[in-house]
Amino acid sequence: MTETASAAPTSGHHEPDGVPRFTPEQLTDFIVAALGQAGLGAEPATVAARMLLNADRRGVDSHGMARLAGFVRRMRAGLIDPDATLTIVNEHPATVAFDAHNGLGLILAPQAMARCIAKAEEMGICLATVRNSNHFGIAGTYALMAAEHGLGGMAMTNASPLVVPTFGAAPRLGTNPIAFAVPTGSGQPLILDMSTSAVAWGKIEIARRAGLPIPPGWGLDADAQPTTDPTQVKMLQPLGGDRTTCGHKGYGLGLMVDVFCGPLAGAGWSRQIARSTNTERSAGIGHMFLAWRIDAFRDPDEFNATLDEIIADLRATPVAAGHEGEHVCVPGDPEAEAERVNRDLGIPVRPGVLKELRALSDEIGIPYTLDR
Amino acid sequence: MTETASAAPTSGHHEPDGVPRFTPEQLTDFIVAALGQAGLGAEPATVAARMLLNADRRGVDSHGMARLAGFVRRMRAGLIDPDATLTIVNEHPATVAFDAHNGLGLILAPQAMARCIAKAEEMGICLATVRNSNHFGIAGTYALMAAEHGLGGMAMTNASPLVVPTFGAAPRLGTNPIAFAVPTGSGQPLILDMSTSAVAWGKIEIARRAGLPIPPGWGLDADAQPTTDPTQVKMLQPLGGDRTTCGHKGYGLGLMVDVFCGPLAGAGWSRQIARSTNTERSAGIGHMFLAWRIDAFRDPDEFNATLDEIIADLRATPVAAGHEGEHVCVPGDPEAEAERVNRDLGIPVRPGVLKELRALSDEIGIPYTLDR
Repeated sequence: MTETASAAPTSGHHEPDGVPRFTPEQLTDFIVAALGQAGLGAEPATVAARMLLNADRRGVDSHGMARLAGFVRRMRAGLIDPDATLTIVNEHPATVAFDAHNGLGLILAPQAMARCIAKAEEMGICLATVRNSNHFGIAGTYALMAAEHGLGGMAMTNASPLVVPTFGAAPRLGTNPIAFAVPTGSGQPLILDMSTSAVAWGKIEIARRAGLPIPPGWGLDADAQPTTDPTQVKMLQPLGGDRTTCGHKGYGLGLMVDVFCGPLAGAGWSRQIARSTNTERSAGIGHMFLAWRIDAFRDPDEFNATLDEIIADLRATPVAAGHEGEHVCVPGDPEAEAERVNRDLGIPVRPGVLKELRALSDEIGIPYTLDR
Repeated sequence: MTETASAAPTSGHHEPDGVPRFTPEQLTDFIVAALGQAGLGAEPATVAARMLLNADRRGVDSHGMARLAGFVRRMRAGLIDPDATLTIVNEHPATVAFDAHNGLGLILAPQAMARCIAKAEEMGICLATVRNSNHFGIAGTYALMAAEHGLGGMAMTNASPLVVPTFGAAPRLGTNPIAFAVPTGSGQPLILDMSTSAVAWGKIEIARRAGLPIPPGWGLDADAQPTTDPTQVKMLQPLGGDRTTCGHKGYGLGLMVDVFCGPLAGAGWSRQIARSTNTERSAGIGHMFLAWRIDAFRDPDEFNATLDEIIADLRATPVAAGHEGEHVCVPGDPEAEAERVNRDLGIPVRPGVLKELRALSDEIGIPYTLDR
């Protein structure tokens, strides 16, 4: 492993000692109080808390507590509507198009996915879209909702522009994630949750905090030139990096996500989406959800048994020389391990995030309850 | 552009002068005659010819005429059943699971996609799987079938193991392609057709023929060590290359394709799939198809207009310094350009492929009609 930020983990259990950890209840109480000051009722705020903590639990700390202050401020500024409800624009037996009316994605997107799952349970499959939404947390949560119902699931969302198209000098696509999950026999779903950029922005932030260079192929500077200095990164490269290493495929995948979540959903496409730091207009994000019954195709017990066999076989793959100490894992293994550790030890929240939450509590007039 | 095989194009119009070109009729006649000697009737053989030529037309010459001899030989050896028909294993209003009974994917997979499209037209969406199949040509053809009906479409297939999982020393997944297409206002669908490996095997073959090194991140040698010598490549890296450059995402995508096409379809998973050079057992490949109506979600005219706007906007992206002479394109542009050129000039077939087809015609006793 080279001495770059690629070695810097996001998983909570890898955090250096001294990162404060909290019970889900402590964090939920704070989230509900903060969102309450932005006009959100306790019940929807509790859903939002669960969605945010799903990210921190799984070690994706860029999408959890770190996002709270932004949501609260945007909602208080009138850029997210706390009272918005999900409505149906277009519905057929196995499809549904929703409008989130600029409500919080964290609250309304789970409702959309729940309805998608219910329709898939009835019809074998359902494809759902959501327009006029905001950030919905980690895409993996939605795919996992399907797997927890014994269904296969996918989730995608677009996001504000950060990723350059191949050969381009300006960001045009969001990190536009793809999540996919299926049940297995072991009880731990197989879950893939990935941005279609080489890395999510959170990896750049981790490298900045650690003061480590990043590998080539992750980011570009203000002049769209490759850089290994995370402080100089202004745009991300698509998965695959430049053209030589087939970054046009990552670009293509990002565009596919955008077609589902932008033009199909009737939302903005990435280039039109407002950044979370934009204080003047709503985000205009779209989401896509897919759920399907395993037993519409195959006996679920056979499916589960095959999945277990594949997973065991992949994990047993011999490790290549030069990677001693590593092992072959399957997508979702690092997040599942983080979840196990954080369940035992508590959910870690970085000091920088806590500092921001303390400032937020002063700003909005709620007690700061996260002192340790 | 560096002096590596990445600069070596696959598109017919880039082929050096002197590569013989043929009319579709000339090639179709030869294909039908050759498959006839393997027991296939003229009607299904004509479908197979169209599917093979779809690849050559679009510049994906690894998946067209270059595959014919292998199909004929496998069929004559009893490893592909020329008489197999597509049957339904499990059907619901918006889902269908097919069994191809070891027939030729080139013939039976288009039937499966046609049925998927018809069901999607009725229900808004359909997800279809196929088990016990063989190579089905280029995945993009199936996604395009949907787009040509005004629907969105996806297609995936698994394939014999060639790609290592991250850190692994042995191939476990096929190049497992993902294709995605939607209609646009311009009449040229947006089409993404990509292997989930860094490159398809055909790119290694092109570099071998050209005697050029390949970029790092494409292939591994027999000891699973990175190599830039295409003659030493024994396994492919997933999209993204090694762990540092996020190849675990390409690995995850390849596994997602395999879950749809293997365990969900009831086919083998990649590790179990026989190579086309295996003379002892059938392939056991599976496919996945998805089609959806645009108007189940959005007014199709609005969708088309938005797509045109996105495509124009992406193509207008300023080019980064260092890439002068390049331009930002959208997925499918190079293949569409190859198709235009090959429609005017004829379909190119490389001398090495012609030599193999001459040997095939001697072997199976048909006239060699491809002399120029």
